[in-house]
Amino acid sequence: MTYCLAIHVDRGLVLCSDSRTNAGTDNVSTYSKMHSFLWPGNRMLCLLSAGNLATTQGVVKRLRNDAGQGAGTSLLSVQSMLEAADYIGMINAEIQRNQAERDISSTSFEASFILGGQIGTEVPATFMIYPQGNYIHESAEHPFLQIGEIKYGKPILDRVIRPDLSLEAAGRCALVSMNSTMRSNVSVGAPVELLIYRTGSLQEGRRLCLSEDDPFFRSIGERWSEGLLQALNNLPPFPWEGPVDEGQVYPFYPSP
Amino acid sequence: MTYCLAIHVDRGLVLCSDSRTNAGTDNVSTYSKMHSFLWPGNRMLCLLSAGNLATTQGVVKRLRNDAGQGAGTSLLSVQSMLEAADYIGMINAEIQRNQAERDISSTSFEASFILGGQIGTEVPATFMIYPQGNYIHESAEHPFLQIGEIKYGKPILDRVIRPDLSLEAAGRCALVSMNSTMRSNVSVGAPVELLIYRTGSLQEGRRLCLSEDDPFFRSIGERWSEGLLQALNNLPPFPWEGPVDEGQVYPFYPSP
Repeated sequence: MTYCLAIHVDRGLVLCSDSRTNAGTDNVSTYSKMHSFLWPGNRMLCLLSAGNLATTQGVVKRLRNDAGQGAGTSLLSVQSMLEAADYIGMINAEIQRNQAERDISSTSFEASFILGGQIGTEVPATFMIYPQGNYIHESAEHPFLQIGEIKYGKPILDRVIRPDLSLEAAGRCALVSMNSTMRSNVSVGAPVELLIYRTGSLQEGRRLCLSEDDPFFRSIGERWSEGLLQALNNLPPFPWEGPVDEGQVYPFYPSP
Repeated sequence: MTYCLAIHVDRGLVLCSDSRTNAGTDNVSTYSKMHSFLWPGNRMLCLLSAGNLATTQGVVKRLRNDAGQGAGTSLLSVQSMLEAADYIGMINAEIQRNQAERDISSTSFEASFILGGQIGTEVPATFMIYPQGNYIHESAEHPFLQIGEIKYGKPILDRVIRPDLSLEAAGRCALVSMNSTMRSNVSVGAPVELLIYRTGSLQEGRRLCLSEDDPFFRSIGERWSEGLLQALNNLPPFPWEGPVDEGQVYPFYPSP
């Protein structure tokens, strides 16, 4: 499986992806699922991929070829993020169709993508592109999108992501959501890639590739576990444990 | 859908279930999924149910009938929790088989259960009973079991559940796991039932039925959200945000 997410806050975009791929439990591998398309000062687009690896590689290769060879429609020629999502959706559906035509089994060639970026003076945008080639943007109330193994890391996003978050806070939140997913599901694995894009910069932004042993990434996981224990300690006691006293601390672990 | 979980700590058991059932989005209803079988001083068993409602109702009815009518094998006659799990698994498979025989469509009659309890001087135990009628107990490292919509509420359990937790702490943790699932998935809903059983008591223990508006349950959700924000505030800064200073606080929300 895969876990990728994109967060859209007022100050910019955060994109985050894991790197584990598998075709059965005995065929586990590492591939980057974060693909940047950058024309500095003009546009920055970043694509996160999930699903059939041959399809996602085919889509990314086609996007690079179209842009490199000056095709009539390419990530360089589109005038808006919406146009870009439409173009990628079309290619995604087309490549799946081609693969299905030469297949005599019932293999799934499906792939999904998250597209994030900014073109010129347009506001940054994020889209989720489905295997069928259609696409949606995030909601104003929950300005984030997820693909792949999305459930483990969703509650933290549901609770804290708001448009006025700082970019770095949104970045830390993405890493926590990823860390929780990796702990609970072995099919999602390091290295974790993180891109932090500041609105209006039209540069790639900050991009990190974090191994499982990376001191910063480890420290995020450890401090988060400590913070959760503290949050549990601060929960109100059950009625039979005595009156609720705001200043009282109820130890999470039993005292000796 | 459904979300039920059981936590087994040294001091006893915590069982927790939601109450939402649905057959399609226009047929949503409320049923308790927590079924207690109590013979005070002798044994306490509690069954949490997920899956086809006709099957789970059929299983519970059969269990009550067998015990009430003094059947050869019943929850009152079994000598151990393992025997109880085996007996429930057999009934579960049998009822599904009977329902499938009279069905000409391809309806799924599957149901799963979590069984928790204590018989006599045996140590308390929890089992997960599959639709196929077989069953497993929890692992020593992660002493909890879940059925239904399990992913949203799993990361918190993975991080904090240990056998030496106090019963009340485990109970609060179960409520947090349930609260997160309800926030992220509309098919899991209140009232939430919680049973806290103390090892050796052979009584029902503390049983709560918490509506969405219950002040204690609301307070758990609110304080947990606050605690998560605080935990995010205490995460280490990215390298470019300046040197890591243990005493420094990085505000999660941007200062004005």
